[in-house]
Amino acid sequence: MAKIPEFESVDLILQNALNEDDYKKVCQVLYGNPTPQLEISSTAKDLANQYNIELKAYSIPAQEEQTRKPRKVRIGLYQHELPILACSPISEMKDAMQKMAKNVIALASKIGVNIFCFQEAWYMPFAFCTREKIPWCEYAESAENGHTTQLLQNLAKEYNMVIISPILERDGVDTLWNTAVVIDNSGDYLGKHRKNHIPRVGDFNESTYYFEGNTGHPVFETVYGKIAINICYGRHHPLNWLAFGLNGAEIVFNPSATVGALSEPLWGIEARNAAIANGYFTCAINRVGTEVFDNEFTSGDGKPAHRDFGHFYGSSYVAAPNGSRTPGLSRTRNGLLVTEVDLNLCRQVKDHWGFQMTRRLDMYAELLSQATSPSYSPQIIKKK
Amino acid sequence: MAKIPEFESVDLILQNALNEDDYKKVCQVLYGNPTPQLEISSTAKDLANQYNIELKAYSIPAQEEQTRKPRKVRIGLYQHELPILACSPISEMKDAMQKMAKNVIALASKIGVNIFCFQEAWYMPFAFCTREKIPWCEYAESAENGHTTQLLQNLAKEYNMVIISPILERDGVDTLWNTAVVIDNSGDYLGKHRKNHIPRVGDFNESTYYFEGNTGHPVFETVYGKIAINICYGRHHPLNWLAFGLNGAEIVFNPSATVGALSEPLWGIEARNAAIANGYFTCAINRVGTEVFDNEFTSGDGKPAHRDFGHFYGSSYVAAPNGSRTPGLSRTRNGLLVTEVDLNLCRQVKDHWGFQMTRRLDMYAELLSQATSPSYSPQIIKKK
Repeated sequence: MAKIPEFESVDLILQNALNEDDYKKVCQVLYGNPTPQLEISSTAKDLANQYNIELKAYSIPAQEEQTRKPRKVRIGLYQHELPILACSPISEMKDAMQKMAKNVIALASKIGVNIFCFQEAWYMPFAFCTREKIPWCEYAESAENGHTTQLLQNLAKEYNMVIISPILERDGVDTLWNTAVVIDNSGDYLGKHRKNHIPRVGDFNESTYYFEGNTGHPVFETVYGKIAINICYGRHHPLNWLAFGLNGAEIVFNPSATVGALSEPLWGIEARNAAIANGYFTCAINRVGTEVFDNEFTSGDGKPAHRDFGHFYGSSYVAAPNGSRTPGLSRTRNGLLVTEVDLNLCRQVKDHWGFQMTRRLDMYAELLSQATSPSYSPQIIKKK
Repeated sequence: MAKIPEFESVDLILQNALNEDDYKKVCQVLYGNPTPQLEISSTAKDLANQYNIELKAYSIPAQEEQTRKPRKVRIGLYQHELPILACSPISEMKDAMQKMAKNVIALASKIGVNIFCFQEAWYMPFAFCTREKIPWCEYAESAENGHTTQLLQNLAKEYNMVIISPILERDGVDTLWNTAVVIDNSGDYLGKHRKNHIPRVGDFNESTYYFEGNTGHPVFETVYGKIAINICYGRHHPLNWLAFGLNGAEIVFNPSATVGALSEPLWGIEARNAAIANGYFTCAINRVGTEVFDNEFTSGDGKPAHRDFGHFYGSSYVAAPNGSRTPGLSRTRNGLLVTEVDLNLCRQVKDHWGFQMTRRLDMYAELLSQATSPSYSPQIIKKK
C-alpha cells in the first residue's frame, strides 16, 4: 500500500492560502503576539543548506525594565531523523550521529546559540517499540563520562554553549534510565535528570527498558539562565511541569519522540499550556521521519505485525509565558530552530497575571495528600 | 477613533480560504479527530434565527464497548451579550435576561440538550472593572432561593434539563461570592460551587467584590453524568482542573468573561489541555460584545480613563479527553453550541494513555507540602 506523503506543516499551508490580513488575525488568535524573525547570516544559511537542515530563527521580546537589563538568550532546538538505517551497526550509527552533532552545533554557534538541546534519546533509533533487548540496550551510556557526553563536553567548551543531551543511560549497576545530561558552557558535566513519567501506551511501553526517574525536578543554574528538562511523556503531566516551576526554572526543554496518530493534536497544546501556567519558556522538540526495523513487531492494536510504528512529525517550537509561540519547524525535515528569548519576560508575566500568587498551593498540597490514600473519599454532591 | 470591527472567527477564515484537502490537514493538527455536525431540525433553526442566535451542533463519539452502553449526553453552552445597555435599571436588566433565558432554554430543549450552562455572572454586566459597589452589588442573589435560581428551577423541571447558573451570590451574612448554582433535571437545587481563584489582573481585580471560594472542588452527580464547574480565572490553574478530576468529574464547565487583548491566545489552549490531562470533557464559555458604562474608570495600564474595557470575544467550545475539540462559536454573536458527547470516551482515553496511572501523585503531594513552607529550598544544581 503506497503511503500518502507527509505534508510539510500547518504554518506553510496557512501562509500560502491566507491573505495578509487574515493571516495576521489567525496568527494572533492561534499563536499570540508576533515572534519577529531574526536575521541570519548568509554563512549560516549556506551551511544549513549544505547540511540539508531547515533553519528558522525568531525572537520573543520583553518590555524594558528600570532595574534589570534585558536577559537575552538564544536557544537552539535540533530535530532530526536517523542519518543511516535504524538497524545499522551501533558503531556506524554513533559515528554518523556524532558527525551530525558536530555539524549542527557548529551551525548553531554561527547564529549565536547559547543553549542547545537535542531530541529524546537523540543518538539512537527509538527502538523501544521492538521490545528486543539486543542490540538496543547496547546504546546505553554513562551519563557522567560516556562517549556522547565526552564529545559534547568538547563542543560545549569550544563554542561556549550549554548543551542538553538526552541519552539512554546505563548506571554503575546496569540499570537503564531515560536521562538528559546537562553540560555547561565551559564543558563541565553539570548534572542529569531522569525521565519522571514512563509511558505504557501502544508502541511506547518504555517500561520494558527503564523505569520512573529518581532525580526529582532539578533546575540547572547556568550562566544563560535557570533551565530544566521535562522528558517526552512528562509533558502530559501538569504536576511535572509545575514542579520545575516551583524550583525556579526559566526555560523547560521537552525533548520528545512521538508519532502523529498518537499525539499530534496534543503537541501544540501541552508545552504551551505549561509555559502559560508556570511563567517560563518551554521548548518542544520532536524527532523526524520513519524508522524501519529488521524484525517485525506488533503494537497491541489488533493490526498485523509491521516494521515501523509511524512518522515522527517534528514540528518543534518554543512557547512563551505570555502564551505566544514561534511557528513550528517542518513535519518532515531535519531542522534547527533558534529562538532569542528575553528571560525578563518570565517575571513580567508572573507579575501581570498573578497565577503564582493566586494558586493556593496549601489547599492543593492537602488535597493531594488526602487523594493518595486508598480510602480517599471524593467530594461528590448528589440528590439525597 | 473608529474601532476596527471584530472579525467573526478563525474557523470561518480557514473554511473560506483553504481547499478541502488542506482544511482537513489543518483541522487534524489543530483540532484533532473530526467532530461531525449533528442534524438540527428546521423548527430549531427557525427559532434560532428568530432569536438571532448562532446555532451549532456537533458530536464527539466514543468506541463501542462490550459491557457498557454508550452514555450519550447533549451539552448546551450559551454565550451572549447584554440584551440592553449595561447601566439600565437592575429590574429591567433582569427582566430582559430572564426573557432571554426562557427563549434559549426552550431552543436548547428542541435540540435535546440535557445539561445547559450559562457564562460567568450571566444575568448582569461584568461591572467589576468599575470598582463601584453601587449599584452592582445589588445584582447579588441567594444561590439557594434567589429569583434567578427559582426561574431556572422551573425551566429545568419543564425541560428535564440540568442547568448550571453562574451568579453573583450574596450569602446570609452579606458576603459576596462568584458562584455557580447547579439545578438538577427535576428542578431541585443540587448545590453550588464558589470560584476558587480570583484574578487581580488589570480590569479583572475582582477581589474588590469577592474572595477565594470555600467550597472545595465538588463534583455533582446528575442523571446525565458527573459534572463540575471551574469558574473563569480558575482555568489558568492546572491544580484546580486536576482536583475536579480527582473527584471523578466527567464534564467540567468553564463559564468565563474574558477580553481579547488579555487572553485570546490562551483561550484555545487551557481548557483543552485540562481535558487531555484529566480525562474529561471541558466546556469553555465566554461572553460576547462590549459593555459600556456611564462612569469612566482607569485600568492601571497608563491609558486614559474610559468607559469600556474591551470586546468579549465569545469563541465558546467543547474539548474532549482525546484532544479533539469542536469549532468555536463566533467572536461576535449570541450563540448556542450543542455537543453530543459519549461519556464512555473518558475512561477509554484514560485506559489508552494511562496519565492517571503514571502520575505519581504521592511524589507531588510531598513536594507541594514542602513547597508551601516559607523555608522551602528549591532543587537547584549549579557549578561547585
